[in-house]
Amino acid sequence: MPALSVFDGRNAAMNSDGLLIVFTGNGKGKTTAALGMAMRAAGHAMSVLVLQFIKGAWSYGELAAAELLRGIEIKPLGTGFTWKKENLDEDRRLAAAGWELAAAEISGGDHAIVVLDELNVVLSYGLLPIEPVVQALRNRRPGLHVVVTGRNAPPELTEIADLVTEMREVKHPFRTRGLKAQKGIEF
Amino acid sequence: MPALSVFDGRNAAMNSDGLLIVFTGNGKGKTTAALGMAMRAAGHAMSVLVLQFIKGAWSYGELAAAELLRGIEIKPLGTGFTWKKENLDEDRRLAAAGWELAAAEISGGDHAIVVLDELNVVLSYGLLPIEPVVQALRNRRPGLHVVVTGRNAPPELTEIADLVTEMREVKHPFRTRGLKAQKGIEF
Repeated sequence: MPALSVFDGRNAAMNSDGLLIVFTGNGKGKTTAALGMAMRAAGHAMSVLVLQFIKGAWSYGELAAAELLRGIEIKPLGTGFTWKKENLDEDRRLAAAGWELAAAEISGGDHAIVVLDELNVVLSYGLLPIEPVVQALRNRRPGLHVVVTGRNAPPELTEIADLVTEMREVKHPFRTRGLKAQKGIEF
Repeated sequence: MPALSVFDGRNAAMNSDGLLIVFTGNGKGKTTAALGMAMRAAGHAMSVLVLQFIKGAWSYGELAAAELLRGIEIKPLGTGFTWKKENLDEDRRLAAAGWELAAAEISGGDHAIVVLDELNVVLSYGLLPIEPVVQALRNRRPGLHVVVTGRNAPPELTEIADLVTEMREVKHPFRTRGLKAQKGIEF
């Protein structure tokens, strides 16, 4: 089962290329997998920037752990979307401001990995136009890995991605046992 | 999109119950999500034990990162399955020895979270009988969260789980671009 073996020895010339990775789907584990990837990279002394497109998506456990690991920087972007029709213009303005920062890190910047947490959601709600995002991701600086999370990844994004995993909800504790959020598990 | 909100205020009496979580499917992100969960828990100063049922599944990046975080202990179990028909008895013996250790941590022990990494694979290859595993997981000590990873989770396991996410492979870099394993991403 060593997942790595399928890669070994293939096309070494492309090894320095950065990957575009998308974690989507309605199940738990998307942001958690991005967090695990950040931790793995920190173990290699690679630097990771996490841009949170939705406020509050990462909470105390993640933030405290990231602080313990040198090399993981977490930046909250939106100061809180309202997700209300009457505030659509304000939400779009917030998304655009967040994207501007992300775009700068994708074309320039010096992190090895940039995580665009919940960007899929912002795109799927139409708060950002998809074309400039696709363009910027396509033209990311050489070697940069980008990880995009959130449900409802737009097809234009999965189309240009190298690795796409759909986290599909099979069972959820709220539905199966009526459980409250669990420290260390949910937050 | 705050995923937590669906839980809030529900059945607080069950809040101290431990969850049985299964990450399965053929896509990337199962062990990575378990790693993220371990990191999140470490941020809460909760202690995590990771039992690796398959040697080499976690590599340098993860191990180094876990060492940086107090509270995450990683224990490799099998000294290497052969996965060969002629060595079936030896592989079964290794699996049984590993499971014995896991069972002790699930009934006793003092970790807040136990990750049984790749146990699904060991079960799906028939290297361990499913019944004692189901029995032990059902009777885990109160409050213990158990995370089981690996493709092909047996139905008997998902049946008793609280949270099941299938990581479904949509796109894989080996197939899309012929890429080699990437440091910080794959290992």
